[in-house]
Parts: sequence; structure tokens; C-alpha cells
Amino acid sequence: MTAPNRNTLWARVLVDELAEAGVSAVCIAPGSRSTPLTVAFARHEDIHVFSHLDERSAAYFALGRARRTGEVTPLVCTSGTAAANFHPAVIEASQARVPMLMLTADRPPELRDSGANQTIDQEKLYGDSVRWYKDLPEPEATDRKLRGLRTTAHRALAQATGTPSGPVHLNVPFRKPLEPIRVEDDVPADLPPLAARGRDGPYVRPTKGVPQLDDRELQEIAERLSAERGLIVAGPADPPGVDPEAIAMLAHGTGFPVLADPLSGLRFGGHVRTTAVVGGYDDFLAEDAVGDWPDPEIVLRIGASPTSKPLRKYLARTDARQLVVDPAAEWREAEFSASDLVVSDPSRLAAHVARLVSGPDSSAWRDRWLSADREHWAAVDGTDDLFEGKILGDVADLAPDPATLFVSNSMPVRDLDRFARPSETNLTALGNRGASGIDGIVSTALGAGSATTDPLTLVLGDLAYYHDMNGLLALDRCEVDATVVLVNNDGGGIFHMLPIEQFDPPFTSQFKTPHGLDFEATGDLYGLEFQRVEGRETFREAYADSVAREGTQVIEVRTTAEESHRTREELHEQVVERVADLD
Amino acid sequence: MTAPNRNTLWARVLVDELAEAGVSAVCIAPGSRSTPLTVAFARHEDIHVFSHLDERSAAYFALGRARRTGEVTPLVCTSGTAAANFHPAVIEASQARVPMLMLTADRPPELRDSGANQTIDQEKLYGDSVRWYKDLPEPEATDRKLRGLRTTAHRALAQATGTPSGPVHLNVPFRKPLEPIRVEDDVPADLPPLAARGRDGPYVRPTKGVPQLDDRELQEIAERLSAERGLIVAGPADPPGVDPEAIAMLAHGTGFPVLADPLSGLRFGGHVRTTAVVGGYDDFLAEDAVGDWPDPEIVLRIGASPTSKPLRKYLARTDARQLVVDPAAEWREAEFSASDLVVSDPSRLAAHVARLVSGPDSSAWRDRWLSADREHWAAVDGTDDLFEGKILGDVADLAPDPATLFVSNSMPVRDLDRFARPSETNLTALGNRGASGIDGIVSTALGAGSATTDPLTLVLGDLAYYHDMNGLLALDRCEVDATVVLVNNDGGGIFHMLPIEQFDPPFTSQFKTPHGLDFEATGDLYGLEFQRVEGRETFREAYADSVAREGTQVIEVRTTAEESHRTREELHEQVVERVADLD
Repeated sequence: MTAPNRNTLWARVLVDELAEAGVSAVCIAPGSRSTPLTVAFARHEDIHVFSHLDERSAAYFALGRARRTGEVTPLVCTSGTAAANFHPAVIEASQARVPMLMLTADRPPELRDSGANQTIDQEKLYGDSVRWYKDLPEPEATDRKLRGLRTTAHRALAQATGTPSGPVHLNVPFRKPLEPIRVEDDVPADLPPLAARGRDGPYVRPTKGVPQLDDRELQEIAERLSAERGLIVAGPADPPGVDPEAIAMLAHGTGFPVLADPLSGLRFGGHVRTTAVVGGYDDFLAEDAVGDWPDPEIVLRIGASPTSKPLRKYLARTDARQLVVDPAAEWREAEFSASDLVVSDPSRLAAHVARLVSGPDSSAWRDRWLSADREHWAAVDGTDDLFEGKILGDVADLAPDPATLFVSNSMPVRDLDRFARPSETNLTALGNRGASGIDGIVSTALGAGSATTDPLTLVLGDLAYYHDMNGLLALDRCEVDATVVLVNNDGGGIFHMLPIEQFDPPFTSQFKTPHGLDFEATGDLYGLEFQRVEGRETFREAYADSVAREGTQVIEVRTTAEESHRTREELHEQVVERVADLD
Repeated sequence: MTAPNRNTLWARVLVDELAEAGVSAVCIAPGSRSTPLTVAFARHEDIHVFSHLDERSAAYFALGRARRTGEVTPLVCTSGTAAANFHPAVIEASQARVPMLMLTADRPPELRDSGANQTIDQEKLYGDSVRWYKDLPEPEATDRKLRGLRTTAHRALAQATGTPSGPVHLNVPFRKPLEPIRVEDDVPADLPPLAARGRDGPYVRPTKGVPQLDDRELQEIAERLSAERGLIVAGPADPPGVDPEAIAMLAHGTGFPVLADPLSGLRFGGHVRTTAVVGGYDDFLAEDAVGDWPDPEIVLRIGASPTSKPLRKYLARTDARQLVVDPAAEWREAEFSASDLVVSDPSRLAAHVARLVSGPDSSAWRDRWLSADREHWAAVDGTDDLFEGKILGDVADLAPDPATLFVSNSMPVRDLDRFARPSETNLTALGNRGASGIDGIVSTALGAGSATTDPLTLVLGDLAYYHDMNGLLALDRCEVDATVVLVNNDGGGIFHMLPIEQFDPPFTSQFKTPHGLDFEATGDLYGLEFQRVEGRETFREAYADSVAREGTQVIEVRTTAEESHRTREELHEQVVERVADLD
């Protein structure tokens, strides 16, 4: 490889190695200092460039792609606060174990802390939220530096996709000229070939093992799981997700029901046909419902902490032994009720243990859970009102097969948990549950959509829609299509579920905070079809119509947070009664 | 003071002490974990609450208030990525020395790193960008903890407004209940009065000295400034600004011209009538213009590094002794051409030295600068086209007296520098020149506007407008009025000034990045009057009309970045010729 100057060479080498490692897309926010990187990415034939104007949205878009695929979409920005705008998404990626690679251009070292323009302290900007940080050396066309750069590219990706996967930050200083302008003698003609051209293929190849137990340890786990009353509890999955077949095998082997968070990758999919997947626990496990059920003897927990608070509290109340399976040994169990930490890849563990387990008959226990679950769904089916929960139920019900469904935090993910029945639809349900922020939802969803040919549905509240309206620009710039279901209750509906509702003021002015925004104008601004619907049948028709069509449609349903909250409470009462009748 | 529980008491004590120290407003983004703080601020009669839904915008709004006043407007957010959304503004505040106080609610310590929901690592979240960080202890109604809290409140404000001023971060953990619900025995009735009620007035009073020289040192500086050929160069001022009268006294005493950055606080104001304030240096100091002028012997530099690159480069080329005056000893001079660092408050230094200086006659030297400056303004007056520079010239020309003018980075601040003539108008010109980001501009401007009764004008480019469109929500929620001049050249106009313009692709797709957004829709979305104008007279009329009226008007002028750039180049050629004729 030759290049007109050292910066151009440096960036080409970095980008080439990333491409050799399989990187096929990049998110770039325009800027001057990052020019060598931008030019190198733009000229690479195997890399698709997604251009973003707001770095916060860019980072969430890249996060969304990785959330969907498990693969890294690098991020490029110029020096200064641009890099700080990545920070919210970096934290989400760290907490949710989503691979990410930030390439932040920087001024040359002598300008740091000198009063130079657009020069900030970018060193370790993201603190402990990254798996690896490296300040790259100043570009130079020398043998050792270029070999080091080639190695660093692969090492960065390996760290980002390691155990646990997460964000990696490379700070990349450049000195002018930044453009591909010829600089005499800047790149020696006699550079050693390995440095200049690399290898045929990646310069280095990381082979990444994952934690697994040995035979004796597996046997021990299998013996513990050989019980009559056990549960498999699956929280939100780390990307790229668990293997449903492996978990299904374990469920069959043990006879235990699978309590599947909507983001676990186990609530929806072909395995549901033959596996005891339970989703109605939000109601029937509540303290006023579960009654005098016997406790489980053993609980196997995989994934992050479940979304459902009733489920978490139920588990905290039981005196079962609880095995938390976490390949990264992070012990994600904030009730501190776990008895064992099992550091292992969950899918491999499940597949291995399924063959070794041989328990007593669990069918009565399992049937009790399935009956309770049926009562939950019967109660849900009994209401036809288009309250907030029903919207999520209908979206899951009418989703094409396959489909990608992204839900925002606060109520949509909770309503998906409570009102979307386990089904055989190949529905990839995703959310940002690492830090459960209200920010970056639009961009994360569109990023996920950009990484798949599945039709994309996004369900979000009005505050999340407002917070990342800028992300809608990606519809046009990044050519993503989506069906956006906007549940507009004009403010923070979730606060109605909290005791602060009783204190007004300041409840309305400082918590619910109605904004009164009419989002119809976003149709004109971002070139999307905006429609407002009322009533359940109209909503179902509009939704079915949208998922079948090209282009992006925003379907707004105006709801009343308080009414929806009361409907949830009424349904809960019904489930409590129904479940009581079972006993 | 009594309270229903420890959290309520804790937050009231903190808020009361902040109010005693003079805090009169707060920016709050709604959330659950921050409930005790929100409730305490909302109930305090002397504190005005600005409620924001996007924490990034909230932080810039608080920054803008402090930028305008020099006083702290605390920021409150809930736990999680909310706090990370403050980060861009925190960096700008750190670099630009703007006082700020972030109060980030957190979960109790045992939930950190436990997998609990919405719990991230908030410790030292902003790294080295803060003047002080403290993780508050767990709230408890004990004598020592409450006295500590009262002291911490004042210490935080003193650090934020110290030398240099800047951001301070208090992380505030709370355990449920968060609402003002009575918890028996949580607040003992017999708390010592100092802890429970504080003092009559602030609990502690910081008296903050600033660096000043002693008499011998002042005499030495005065002797150095007793020269024929000297310059006073004023870059962007730290809040709350320099004292124009003190600098004017020094200018009179030395006979030196004042090269006044538009953000120095010295380009505009009553002192201009009697002081040799120069603003046209961007053209006549360029390397092709300045010719065989004699070098200055001595340069006194105050404020941050000037916006003008020709000015910075001119100073780097001279072999004058250059004294950088910086009360924080940070040596903000990235050309490394300074010979002396003077650690002193600039206004006090100027006022003292002005009385001691007694130099040779500087009138010929000064007149040469004033003549060159006149030629610059004559050339600017000679064109009637509404190119981008003329917009800034007209805005400054037509601004009411007094007025606050906020300009975005990239071209508007540079055009203000080059095309806004020094005038006696009491015009407070502000920008975010700490990190010179494109982010948060709308919010910073509206924050500045909220802190003054001056009419507010904001001039910004389309990318800055897009980046912080969310900030427009403050117009309604925070009741700010503004005249917004939107210079829309559909993309990154500044890139036309850089060599990358020659490389297309990727110039258009990755640098200029036209977005094609029609911002008229923001009128409906945010309830503002949006108009698009063409031609200079129409623009001047629309602007004059808007500043005289209530409500917010966005005046969009569509420009062509390339044409504007060529006009700037033509004007530069004219100035070069005119200045050459002077010699």
C-alpha cells in the first residue's frame, strides 16, 4: 500500500484491517480532524458508510446495529465534545454488553491542554465504561508503528466482542495535513511489505474462547437440576443472544418451565411450540396472587436481571437455591438471593447439562405454571380496550414473521413483558436495558433495522420519541424503513405507578411534565407518514397496513397514562381471582 | 427544620443552603431517583425551576445562564445515562470556565455494579472535567452528616465559582422511599439545631480571593508596557467577563490599540467611544496583507486564545515579548509564542498597571492600526450582498441597546469576528468557545436569554440548529423569547474553507453532508414564527421587526456556503489592496 502522506496511510491501514476482520459498516459524524479516517472509510469498497449529524444519535445507531447482530459497527467523530456525545450510548453498551468501537480523532499531543481550539481532554473519556482504551501513537510510516496499528485494529475488535463484549475506545491523533495531499518523503518507498501491505487476509487472527465448565462441574450442575420443582429464568440476553434450541433442550431435560423475559430471545420463536415458555408472571407471581404455591427447589438464571419486578421479588422471596449463569462473572442479581455463580456460556452449559440431567417427574409443577399462565392470557384477551398494554400485545400478535421489534423503556418494555403472549413468530425483540435510559431509542431501533432485512417495528412513548427526534434523520440518510408506534400519553406515564402521584404539586409540573407537543410536524420535517389513530380495530388495521408497506409510518395512539394504569390494575385483580380458583 | 423522612430532610437541607448562597434557579430533568431533590427545589419559594426533558439540552441551558451571569444554576437528573447526557456541556463548561453544579441522583451504594435496573457507575463520571467531585454519603438525619451536607453545598458553589470557575459534580444516592412519605423515627425530634435548622443565613461563607501581583511585580509589568509599539489582545472572556473600564484605562495609559475578539466583552460597549478598539484584524493581519509593518515590542494577552486564526498566526510570527495574563495559570496560548505568564486577575491587573505606566508616544503606531481597521470596514461597507458575513454584520448593527447576542461555532462566530464593527452598543456577545462544539447551541443561547431582561438574538447555522432542535422546547417550557437567525447553507459550510473541498468524493457525501431538511416544520412543532427571507433589505426589516416584538421568530436565510466563502475572499483581496495603499 502506498499513500500521499502518513495520515492517509495510517487511516487506510486501520480501515483495511478492520475490513479484513469483517467490519462491513461504519457510522461517521462529519468533522475536520477525523478527515483521514472518513476518507479511508469512504473509499473502502467493502464498507458501507452511515453518515450522521448528531453524534449522540450516531452512537445509538451503531449500538442498535450491534445489538441486532453482535458485530461491531465502528464510530468515527472529530475532536472535542463530539466524542462526549457518544457517552450515553457507550454506557448503555457497557451495561448491556454490546460491542462498540469508538474512533475519536484528536489533535496532536502538544496541543492538548494548550488552549488550542476544539481541543479537549479525550484521554480515558469514557472512564471505566470501556473494555479497552488506547491512545494511538502519532501517525508515522515506520515498520513498527504500522505493524502495531494493524495489530491494534484486531485487538480492539477482539476486546469489543470478548467476554463480556462492550465498548472499546481508540483515540486517534492527527497532525495536518489531514487531506490526501501529497507530502514529499512522508511515506518511504522502501517500507517493509508486512508493515506497508499487511498480509493476505487479517494481519492477526484472534481465536476467542468462552468460559465453560469441565465434565465434573457439569455433572454437579446436572445433579442439582435433577429436581421436581425448578425454574429456568431468562432475563434480557447479551448480544448476539442465546441459542433457543439449547435452552429448549434443557427445559425438556429438566421438565422445568422457562420464564422468558420479552428480551431474552426465548419469549418468541419456533421453540415455543414444544417448550413450556411462560410470560404472564408479572401478574400471577405478584405477592397478592401467588398464594400458597410451594417454592421451587432450584432456579437457573441466565441473561441479565429480568424486567419484571414481580418476578424479581418472587425469586427474592423463595428459599430456592439460585444459580446465576454469567460468562462474565458479573453476578447480575441485585436482590442478592443467588446462591451460586456459574461462570459459563449459558447456551453451551444448557446443551451439555440437558444430556446429563435426569430428574423426578416435574409435570405437575410445570402444569401449575402453564395453567396460571393461561389464566393470565385469558384475562388479557377478555379486554378489548386499546389501553397501552393492548398496543404491545397487538403489535406482537400482528408482527410479520420474521420481524424485529424494538421497545423503549419505561412502560413499553414492561407492557411487552406483561401483554405479549409467547408465540412461535420469529420475533427478535430488543430494548436498551443496560441502563434503561429514555435516550437514543429512535436511533438504536433504526440501527437495528439497518442491520437486518426483517421488517422493523419500534414502539415507544412520547418522551422517548422527543428525546431522540434527531435520530429520525437516519430514515432518509441511512435508508431505513420502520413502523413506529408512538404511544403518546403526553408526559411521564410511569410516574403514575409511583407514590409521587399522591403529591401534586409537584407531580404534574415536575414529574408527569406534559409537553403538549404535536408530533404531526415531524412528518413534514423527516418525510415520514404520520397518522393518529383511535380505537383498537383502527389501530390493528393501521399497523397491519404499515408493516406490509414500504416507507416509514408513524402511528400515534393517544392514551391516558392514568387510565391505562387503572386497566392494568383491573386486569391484575382478574388474574389474582382466576389463579386463586386454580388452587 | 423537620421532614417526614431522611431523604426529604436531606434534600431540603441541601436546597436551603444553595438558596442561602444565592442560587435562584435550577434546571431539572424529570426522573424517579431524583424525587427528593426535585420536590425540595419545587417547594422552595426563592428558586425558579426550569424543567427540561432532554438532559443534554438541560445542561447547556444551565451553562448558558451561567455564561451570561457568572452564577451557578444547578442541574438535577435521575440515575443512569441521564447524567452522561450532561457530559458535552460539562466539558464545554470546564474549558470555558463556566460555573456549573451537577446533582446526579444515584441508587444506594449496595446496588452499584449489581445488575440493578438503571444503575450505572456514576463515580467520577466526568473524569478530569470537574473542579470537584464528591459522592455524598447515604442520607441520614444525624448531626455530623447534616452539618457536612450544609458545608458541602457552599463548598461546591465556591469551587464552581473559584479560579478557574467550572463544573462541580455531587453524586447524591437515595434509598426508597423517595417521596415525602412519613417514616416513623427516621428524623429524630431532638436533632441539634445547627444540623436541623442551620444558621440564620448561610451555614458557612466562603470569601474567595483572586490572584493579584504585589507592587514590585506590578511596577515591573508597567515598565515592560512602557513601550512605543504594543498591543492589548483580548480573546474570549471567562464569565462573568472583564471590566471594560479597567482595560480601557490600560489602553489609554499605554496608548496601545485593543484587538478585541467579539466574545471578549470589549468589541462592543460604551468604552468603544474613547478607546482604540480594533476588530478588522482577520483581514489586514493576514500574511499577504500585513506587509512590512514593524513588529510590536510587547503584547499583553488576556482571555482565551482569540477566535481569529490570522491574528493568532500574526502573533506567532512577531518576535515581541508576549505576556499571557491568566488568573488560573493555564497558559492558553497554543502557538507557544508567549514569553511570560502573568497569573493575575486581568481587570485588576489592568486597573493597577494603567496608573503606573508611562511610555513613549504611541500615537503613530496606534493610528496605523486604526487606519488599517478603517480600510477593513470600508471594504465591508462596500458590498450590499446578503452573504453569510453580512448577516452577522447587520445583526450587530441593528441589535437593540442593550442586547444579548449568541453565535454558534463554525462560521457565525468567525463572521461576527470579521464583519461586526466595534460599536458603543451594549451588546453582550457570547458563544461556546471552550470546546467550540456544534452541540447545545440553541439551549445555551436560550439559557443565556432566560437569565437577562435583554432581548436575545441567536445566530446559528443549520447544523447547529438541527443538532439541538430539542432545545427549542425551552421557548415554551421556560418562557424564553428570542430572535433566531438561521443561516441555512444545507450542510457544513466551513469545509469549503478547508483543503478537503478539493476531494469530491468524499467531500459532498461525508463532509458538507447536505441534509435537505426543511426547518419550517419546527414552527408548528415548537410554536414559533418561522419565516424565510431573501435579500438584504428584507432581512434587515425582518430582523428589526422581530427584535421589537414579543414571541420567538426564526428568520431563515438560505445561503450558499461556497458563494459566501468567495465573497469573503474577494473582500479580503480588497482589504489587502487598501492596506497596501496605506504604506
